[in-house]
Amino acid sequence: MTNTQVTLVQLDNYGPWTVTPAPRREVDLQTMQSRLYADLSQAFGMRDGYVFFTRFDNMLAVTNGLDLEDHARIQESIRNRYPVTVSLSIGTGASPADALVNATAALQDQGSAQDADRREALLGQPIDEAERTDDDVQIAHFDVVDATGKYTDELDAFSSFVNIEQGYAELMKHMHAAHDSLSFFVGGDNIIAVCPDLTDDDYDAAIQHVRETANVDLRVGVGRGVSPHDAGMGAKHALELAREDDTYVEGDLA
Amino acid sequence: MTNTQVTLVQLDNYGPWTVTPAPRREVDLQTMQSRLYADLSQAFGMRDGYVFFTRFDNMLAVTNGLDLEDHARIQESIRNRYPVTVSLSIGTGASPADALVNATAALQDQGSAQDADRREALLGQPIDEAERTDDDVQIAHFDVVDATGKYTDELDAFSSFVNIEQGYAELMKHMHAAHDSLSFFVGGDNIIAVCPDLTDDDYDAAIQHVRETANVDLRVGVGRGVSPHDAGMGAKHALELAREDDTYVEGDLA
Amino acid sequence: MTNTQVTLVQLDNYGPWTVTPAPRREVDLQTMQSRLYADLSQAFGMRDGYVFFTRFDNMLAVTNGLDLEDHARIQESIRNRYPVTVSLSIGTGASPADALVNATAALQDQGSAQDADRREALLGQPIDEAERTDDDVQIAHFDVVDATGKYTDELDAFSSFVNIEQGYAELMKHMHAAHDSLSFFVGGDNIIAVCPDLTDDDYDAAIQHVRETANVDLRVGVGRGVSPHDAGMGAKHALELAREDDTYVEGDLA
Amino acid sequence: MTNTQVTLVQLDNYGPWTVTPAPRREVDLQTMQSRLYADLSQAFGMRDGYVFFTRFDNMLAVTNGLDLEDHARIQESIRNRYPVTVSLSIGTGASPADALVNATAALQDQGSAQDADRREALLGQPIDEAERTDDDVQIAHFDVVDATGKYTDELDAFSSFVNIEQGYAELMKHMHAAHDSLSFFVGGDNIIAVCPDLTDDDYDAAIQHVRETANVDLRVGVGRGVSPHDAGMGAKHALELAREDDTYVEGDLA
Repeated sequence: MTNTQVTLVQLDNYGPWTVTPAPRREVDLQTMQSRLYADLSQAFGMRDGYVFFTRFDNMLAVTNGLDLEDHARIQESIRNRYPVTVSLSIGTGASPADALVNATAALQDQGSAQDADRREALLGQPIDEAERTDDDVQIAHFDVVDATGKYTDELDAFSSFVNIEQGYAELMKHMHAAHDSLSFFVGGDNIIAVCPDLTDDDYDAAIQHVRETANVDLRVGVGRGVSPHDAGMGAKHALELAREDDTYVEGDLA
Repeated sequence: MTNTQVTLVQLDNYGPWTVTPAPRREVDLQTMQSRLYADLSQAFGMRDGYVFFTRFDNMLAVTNGLDLEDHARIQESIRNRYPVTVSLSIGTGASPADALVNATAALQDQGSAQDADRREALLGQPIDEAERTDDDVQIAHFDVVDATGKYTDELDAFSSFVNIEQGYAELMKHMHAAHDSLSFFVGGDNIIAVCPDLTDDDYDAAIQHVRETANVDLRVGVGRGVSPHDAGMGAKHALELAREDDTYVEGDLA
Repeated sequence: MTNTQVTLVQLDNYGPWTVTPAPRREVDLQTMQSRLYADLSQAFGMRDGYVFFTRFDNMLAVTNGLDLEDHARIQESIRNRYPVTVSLSIGTGASPADALVNATAALQDQGSAQDADRREALLGQPIDEAERTDDDVQIAHFDVVDATGKYTDELDAFSSFVNIEQGYAELMKHMHAAHDSLSFFVGGDNIIAVCPDLTDDDYDAAIQHVRETANVDLRVGVGRGVSPHDAGMGAKHALELAREDDTYVEGDLA
Repeated sequence: MTNTQVTLVQLDNYGPWTVTPAPRREVDLQTMQSRLYADLSQAFGMRDGYVFFTRFDNMLAVTNGLDLEDHARIQESIRNRYPVTVSLSIGTGASPADALVNATAALQDQGSAQDADRREALLGQPIDEAERTDDDVQIAHFDVVDATGKYTDELDAFSSFVNIEQGYAELMKHMHAAHDSLSFFVGGDNIIAVCPDLTDDDYDAAIQHVRETANVDLRVGVGRGVSPHDAGMGAKHALELAREDDTYVEGDLA
């Protein structure tokens, strides 16, 4: 059974900061946000975690393998190098969605995202090292079947983007509502979902849902592992196999 | 009348690179992509342009004020500092969507996004300096009414994200189909759209469309200017005004 | 005759910040400093300027071609993205050393480098665009003759570094005292000097001085141009020529 | 007794790359080098290591606590995100200088720094986890007595730099020749030295040597620890004490 550890990364009082004393240059905000994300990606990634940019002011990480000290170290490093600070809240559980519900609730209890007095909260408890198993994390890596041939080389760049975005919007909603999974667009035509134990049929149904609602044809590789990196790399290899064999679902399934 | 200059930024043969000789670590790809975007944001931004991350392997920039030499300089800088290269294709016109259609078509004529022999194309013609006017760029800056109170502080972090994402998916589709506009999620609850000459009623209709289809309540500030920065800063100030006065549409409208 | 525009970049009240409320992690300071330098290098470089890391808390830029607005834009971008701010002071003149004396004095007049109330000074006047000429900047690019064969592949890495560092320490002192030039180690075995009009003999004497005092054998390529980039690229090509022809001084000399 | 683990980080075939097919823009090289250093600083630093920029194409790290897998992970991350690759060679021993001699020799055995066929060497053996002790690393953190009052606020910026640079050149030579220590300028007026077991008298003598040869007045704080971070933070606190008490040598000495 999966046991996912998620971390909510929330920039402290960020909205007000972006317009104080006057609206800040958009290109600077974009640069700062995307570099902060890049740094978190390396910092969590050095210990085999994953982080997703999500809304940038609220990022979601899968952090099996990172303890409280690792989280504190990352929080300190951001404080030392950025004009903003971050709060971190950890949740765990068989359901990634539920783990995040808990992590969010704990942070909301400390105050609003726009509370000037709530800074650098560090909440929650990581999974005990002794309890970690090779089944803890399930990652599904989706991409669009022949995205280059059907979209990128064929439609104008925004129409391609509209198609991929509609596919993502449907998939993320479906996977969340039906399967307690957290799905993230990660660039190109790729979506990575953090899932509980799902079956071949679950993924088939998700792919069919996106085909019917958004007319976008997805494929998926699924991996499991003790860490997000291990599960995610398994998913990537499974997806390569699905591409080669022209199948829809491949990987380490129940 | 608007005269938007857009630039399609396409990473050359990027998909194959990410899996050669084997799938690369996701966190490294995420870091590389988001830093490349951050660098482009600064590089275009130093000359008052805007760039949006879009799909990361295909980014869209609004580049009124940047000439071919500026584009070449940016292309060279990426080559000197990254393991990947970029092709750039410029399109112009009263309609941002049509400008991008032209830019995309020119690049597609040079070969596929996954063509190993097509590297560092630099295509299209910027607007003549002498023809630039203060009406060239219209930017609309949307955000969600009371996003912190209704979503961030109230729902779990992924449910908040689902809502904002559904709102974005509907807005981007509507603004493209109905108004030849290019809309981009830029973090938090913010969406920036590059538009032709639109009216108060056009924006009202867009906001109503998103409310009805996604149940998300948007607000918008609109600005015009000779450059994306000028128009975008106007939009930000108009949005501040809309927040203060609790109105739905503010700014420099026809 | 040269007419160099230099800009002193000084971090505001940086020393105290690094130990408040307690000494900050060295690796974070190193990361923050070197990225700030990297960003300035791109920002000045987009307009053909050069910047040198020098002491990191005090950096020196050669900024022919950048006006006050460019400087203000760079200053704003740092404020928006870093936990520190910078003051900028511009000086100009035939002698790079004198130009910097003036720039420094103007900034010192505004308060100490560790004055908590002196933030984001922006001082001095750039050269009028109309007065700029192709002779304004003279750049000399030195490297060590056969550094790889004599040091890197032969000695241990620190002994190699000691040799190169001693050569630099002698060159920078000599070029400053004898020739009003500002010399900067830029990595590897490379030193870039910003010079007034110097002759072949001047460079020969400098090379001989370093050989006698530090037992390090240098070579130099010299370029001139309207901007640091133009002069610097000329110097690089001249240095390539000197390498090929095994000569000591090449380039665009008086 | 100290047991220092050093890692030589050498960019593979970097010199030729910088001029192929023609000399690359200096500002891009500067940006790439300093960001590569910044990334290594974070990557080693996340596991309590230190890295120094040294010559940028040859960087030196103190890596007690990082195993071969950590090194391989860092090497892979650079390959995935930069246009260059790095070789890493580990050496250990009571003498930091000797440890580096061994690390360098092992790498030189694999080929020249400018050998196109030698890429991503990973050499040497880290200290066994079981053998690590709280005395393994000794770090000395020097700064210049009243640098702001005597130099930064008083002399022009380059003259200040000349003074600090001469002090550094003398200290690094002396500490290497007399004490098998590796000293690195880290910005401002700060020098960090990695040392074997040194006494109060050793540091006094070093300070006196720099005063006599370069006329620069140094102060030092010394720390010990199981990792570079622990030792370095001890050194910083000791230096704060020396500043407060106006003494020359403070810290955890034999």
